[in-house]
Amino acid sequence: MITVNVALSARAYPILIGPGLLDDAALVAAHIPGRQVALVTNETVAPLYLERLEKALAGRQLVRIVLPDGEQYKTLESFNAIVSRMLEARLERGCTLVALGGGVVGDVAGFAAACYQRGVRFVQIPTTLLAQVDSSVGGKTAVNHALGKNMIGAFHQPSAVIADIATLNTLPDRELRAGLAEVIKYGLIQDLDFLVWLEANLDALLARDPAALAEAVRRSCEHKAVVVAADERESGLRALLNLGHTFGHAIEHALGYGQWLHGEAVAAGMCLAAEMSARLGRISRADADRVTRLLARADLPVSPPPEIAPATLLEAMSLDKKNKDGRIRLVLFEALGRAALCDDYPQDALLATLAEGSRAAARAIA
Amino acid sequence: MITVNVALSARAYPILIGPGLLDDAALVAAHIPGRQVALVTNETVAPLYLERLEKALAGRQLVRIVLPDGEQYKTLESFNAIVSRMLEARLERGCTLVALGGGVVGDVAGFAAACYQRGVRFVQIPTTLLAQVDSSVGGKTAVNHALGKNMIGAFHQPSAVIADIATLNTLPDRELRAGLAEVIKYGLIQDLDFLVWLEANLDALLARDPAALAEAVRRSCEHKAVVVAADERESGLRALLNLGHTFGHAIEHALGYGQWLHGEAVAAGMCLAAEMSARLGRISRADADRVTRLLARADLPVSPPPEIAPATLLEAMSLDKKNKDGRIRLVLFEALGRAALCDDYPQDALLATLAEGSRAAARAIA
Repeated sequence: MITVNVALSARAYPILIGPGLLDDAALVAAHIPGRQVALVTNETVAPLYLERLEKALAGRQLVRIVLPDGEQYKTLESFNAIVSRMLEARLERGCTLVALGGGVVGDVAGFAAACYQRGVRFVQIPTTLLAQVDSSVGGKTAVNHALGKNMIGAFHQPSAVIADIATLNTLPDRELRAGLAEVIKYGLIQDLDFLVWLEANLDALLARDPAALAEAVRRSCEHKAVVVAADERESGLRALLNLGHTFGHAIEHALGYGQWLHGEAVAAGMCLAAEMSARLGRISRADADRVTRLLARADLPVSPPPEIAPATLLEAMSLDKKNKDGRIRLVLFEALGRAALCDDYPQDALLATLAEGSRAAARAIA
Repeated sequence: MITVNVALSARAYPILIGPGLLDDAALVAAHIPGRQVALVTNETVAPLYLERLEKALAGRQLVRIVLPDGEQYKTLESFNAIVSRMLEARLERGCTLVALGGGVVGDVAGFAAACYQRGVRFVQIPTTLLAQVDSSVGGKTAVNHALGKNMIGAFHQPSAVIADIATLNTLPDRELRAGLAEVIKYGLIQDLDFLVWLEANLDALLARDPAALAEAVRRSCEHKAVVVAADERESGLRALLNLGHTFGHAIEHALGYGQWLHGEAVAAGMCLAAEMSARLGRISRADADRVTRLLARADLPVSPPPEIAPATLLEAMSLDKKNKDGRIRLVLFEALGRAALCDDYPQDALLATLAEGSRAAARAIA
């Protein structure tokens, strides 16, 4: 087992990474304190792992809350359902809420933990690659609103993250690939060495080689931990973790939540960010193509769905949380392995990227 | 104008207290930064003060959100209505949300400010005595749930509180008295001198003498500021501010929100806390009667409504947020002017207090 520490002074916490952690009842029990525990999961994950978790917590008052599976359930209604069940079971402020599942479960359960009686202890047990490398770390919680993704939420740090690599064996291929988009993101924004490692090890990762997966999760969590410790509330540095996300959220929003996976939309978004960066002369065309090719090798989308008009994407992007004074702020490349927040680009470049990005991506992988 | 500072290291903020502050457009504008401002108020307060506030903010993008008036609207639905209007108006994370009104407006608007895009700037302009002396200071925000009061919420500090004493002139008598319950509370829990001052000045306060009101607001805010600075998240000291609230919340819950005002329920709750403290020999019967008599002089209820059975109150109290390991934790007296958190009382004393409290109060004021 590897431990990565998130060094937040008042609320530091460990990320435990390794195969089979859920089988270690003593370890699980030790990291989930409290006499009362709410277990939030979804219909897909519950039959796979819930029983094991409940066994490790024998003797506590357990409240089981099973949500339907899918981004379309990351809503204020699901949040309210969790809170209502906790109140019905008379859970006190000293209880612990555990999120067992992927990013959607973690985000909505985390938001419930942030707001239940103004905040209760929260433990993340991520079972998807995306959740293990990204969403379970850093304390961002949220639900979606009809007018935008993650628009209602809170910063609420977990007290521990337990990432059992073995749970990735039950992950559908499509979700594994979507998670790899976020892994590749860390290489693109701040670690060229890691990007090179990913290019060399992509096939092993797609084949679910446990050593390769553990290494990818570890390095991703280390990156995220450093960024979060430096900028918990996203005043600057942390915004770089949003590479591809402004485009990606717009794609998810325009398609309707639950159509594309989050990581798929982010992959297409990172290709658009690379295309726009090349268009602005910030990186070479060859570098932009290198981004696109790596994501294509992981079988991820490299451009928005053709049925969505550029104007529709632009409209959705104008609602992004990073925007300031009406300007859409984008994370663009300064070089491969180095990203920066940018809002002084010519508007034409953004419009051209939205209009031409798909063609550029097609050329790159031809 | 008097300024009381709330000394929270990262998020210190001023409470401005004085008559006619809302007429000082420059002062108001200076404390409400941002190009975009959401103004949340209710149907009663809007016709009185909204126009003046909007004039002070001329040139900004203003979004006006007027809720119905009453505790029964302190709900997740109102929260969602606020957030939806802000999204429709495309308010960015750099916006400021202003709560103009009483405790309900401040609590639900504050919760929206805490969660909109994971938190935006928040300014309180309390227009009731209760809000000026209590709910606008300290960063507690919440909405009610059918199963309990303030069960969904967050800690989110305002960046400024503007308490215009002149707004109390439009306050109905019943609300003025309800606010006085919270003022009296500060004397009871930690300031015997202030309690003596209140006994001497109660008639002036009820007659809305501006100097007396300003003094009561200042001393109350100073008390609250000290407690909040020492214990922002209510791990100990801050819980003492809940004197009478465990009983009071149970009364509000059992009656249905909006029947009694919050301060009225707290007044009855403080009498029950005094009665139970006397029963346990923590204070004298004479001291308990002194509490009851002062509240009765302010025309506040001194016992629960007779139609609510003790068992119903006990059931509602068992859901209180302070409870731990199934024990109902109460704030009781150690002396007049000194309160303490207590959970090792004999259960009989609580049952007897609920059963006999009304008779004791009647004797005290006979």
